[in-house]
Amino acid sequence: MNAIEWKQGILILLDQTALPTAVKFIECDSYQMVAKAIKNLEVRGAPAIGAAAAFGMVLGLQELIRTQADIIEGFNRVAAELKATRPTAVNLAWAVDRILAAATPYLSSEPARLLAEVEAEAVRIFEEDRAMNKCLAQHGARLFTQPTAVLTHCNAGALATAGYGTALGVVRQAWADGHITRVFADETRPLLQGSRLTAWEMMQENIPVTLITDNMAGWVMKNKMVQAVIVGADRITANGDVANKIGTYGVAVLAKEHGIPFYVAAPVSTFDFTMASGDEIPIEERKAEEVTTLGGVITAPAGVEVFNPAFDVTPHDMVTAIITEHGVLQAPYTESIMKMKRKIEG
Amino acid sequence: MNAIEWKQGILILLDQTALPTAVKFIECDSYQMVAKAIKNLEVRGAPAIGAAAAFGMVLGLQELIRTQADIIEGFNRVAAELKATRPTAVNLAWAVDRILAAATPYLSSEPARLLAEVEAEAVRIFEEDRAMNKCLAQHGARLFTQPTAVLTHCNAGALATAGYGTALGVVRQAWADGHITRVFADETRPLLQGSRLTAWEMMQENIPVTLITDNMAGWVMKNKMVQAVIVGADRITANGDVANKIGTYGVAVLAKEHGIPFYVAAPVSTFDFTMASGDEIPIEERKAEEVTTLGGVITAPAGVEVFNPAFDVTPHDMVTAIITEHGVLQAPYTESIMKMKRKIEG
Repeated sequence: MNAIEWKQGILILLDQTALPTAVKFIECDSYQMVAKAIKNLEVRGAPAIGAAAAFGMVLGLQELIRTQADIIEGFNRVAAELKATRPTAVNLAWAVDRILAAATPYLSSEPARLLAEVEAEAVRIFEEDRAMNKCLAQHGARLFTQPTAVLTHCNAGALATAGYGTALGVVRQAWADGHITRVFADETRPLLQGSRLTAWEMMQENIPVTLITDNMAGWVMKNKMVQAVIVGADRITANGDVANKIGTYGVAVLAKEHGIPFYVAAPVSTFDFTMASGDEIPIEERKAEEVTTLGGVITAPAGVEVFNPAFDVTPHDMVTAIITEHGVLQAPYTESIMKMKRKIEG
Repeated sequence: MNAIEWKQGILILLDQTALPTAVKFIECDSYQMVAKAIKNLEVRGAPAIGAAAAFGMVLGLQELIRTQADIIEGFNRVAAELKATRPTAVNLAWAVDRILAAATPYLSSEPARLLAEVEAEAVRIFEEDRAMNKCLAQHGARLFTQPTAVLTHCNAGALATAGYGTALGVVRQAWADGHITRVFADETRPLLQGSRLTAWEMMQENIPVTLITDNMAGWVMKNKMVQAVIVGADRITANGDVANKIGTYGVAVLAKEHGIPFYVAAPVSTFDFTMASGDEIPIEERKAEEVTTLGGVITAPAGVEVFNPAFDVTPHDMVTAIITEHGVLQAPYTESIMKMKRKIEG
């Protein structure tokens, strides 16, 4: 089952808001539908958002060509709209900018040629993400040499990417290698990506999984029930600070207190080399109803004030290693990240 | 509004599972109904459970007298049944034992006399709890001398006691003194006592309250949005280890990391002088459905494994102070707790 599929000019998204009780698909035939799906978290996870936005660009271009609109002005507008859907994950802007760059040499070509080039680039972004995840997982799995129970937060799995997953990709590979005994999944309030998506993904592959509420992570560590933490990331700055789903920072503090390694798994597209530290990362705040209701059930008094940041930032000094498709980075991160950047840029 | 009321031989409980969307009352006319209400968390909070169980003992005795059953055998059976409803909070056993002790001198007296003595003792337990909370709040409020935003977990309020509250009693008093700027309430999964009860209690008194999910507490502290943590307790051992609602330990670790004082507010009935440390405290595990559903809404895949401890233990070295009705205790706790015990026992 794929969370994202591009089929005959239609983007088919597995509706992640309907899981685990229903497996539904959304067929996007316009960039507006893609933008809406990203905003509503029907597609979520930094790499998956990037791939979806890339195909959203293709759908936008199709429409501009069909309606004989001004391509350059229109394409930039589509790009801006898609980028504005969510502010924290950097893969979104990265994918949209990559599509714009791929389009540039062909802006004066035949529309069909331009469209073909843009579509090919979107497909590459998608295919590369899958391949990168496999590669990342190979690097990450080498960190697990003993039978290990891991704790994870949110969902950095196949559902969050073009396939296989980042943090859960490492878990899949380490499980295949015989080094994972169990996954503890934080349910991840308010939107329960852990219980709805991570538990579901693990059960699909018969990897032993135990669901806990977020506030049980400390007690699980105190009782030596896990030996490692592994999470994904939405943005990593040049010094190694990691923005990820709200609650990640708390898990990192708990891991530090218990002497448990805290691993972050993310492709290079997650790095924002333009930002010196996590202090610069914009943190999306979402609406109060996510906290005061659950599936239509009211869980709090009417009118209560709510603080609902969707992400937090874990400082680099709490990160044991960052696992990428180009290898495993360790402190000092400013140097190891810069070295990786130079290697990639050749 | 009282969470517990004893009226003409009937125990009236505010159904805390129905809050905040409905204000419903349960009229218990048998000890079995009281036991069921404790098990189902319709009445919850260590001191409130103690008071409810004391009145449950009165209802049990009424029935034994009415049915002309063997009083001594029957009363011990009622006591055992009530004590078995929940294993972690010590106030429950404390209250039941106090009723048994009050009954002992009158076991050969007229049934009416025995019943009157037992009822009087239950009323004393209830009244004393209210008075103790006021006294505890006075002691605790002295710790707040500057404008302070506090974070609390679960509900240690009027609803958890015979009235006024322990941790929230301190907050009420410090608010009245002008030293509380805001309360951050952890929602407290799985049963949401924070969003359903604490937020509701604070809003009833116009104390500014911000609701957060449990996994936001770390980010709130990192952003310097709170300057103190205050929680209740279900059992405190002779060395100052504190059993309280699951997630309390995680909050304590976060407070330590951020240099924020971590206060525990609890009456002397919460202390278990027979236990040397928190390692001996039995931790209640509750059913998986509390984690996999919410108000009938399924939030996790069918059949997923769940770990659902209702409490955790915070080691004494993370506790800045324990606030009791006899004053504020500080480290070394083995000594300060023993000193308090000697003072009480005269």
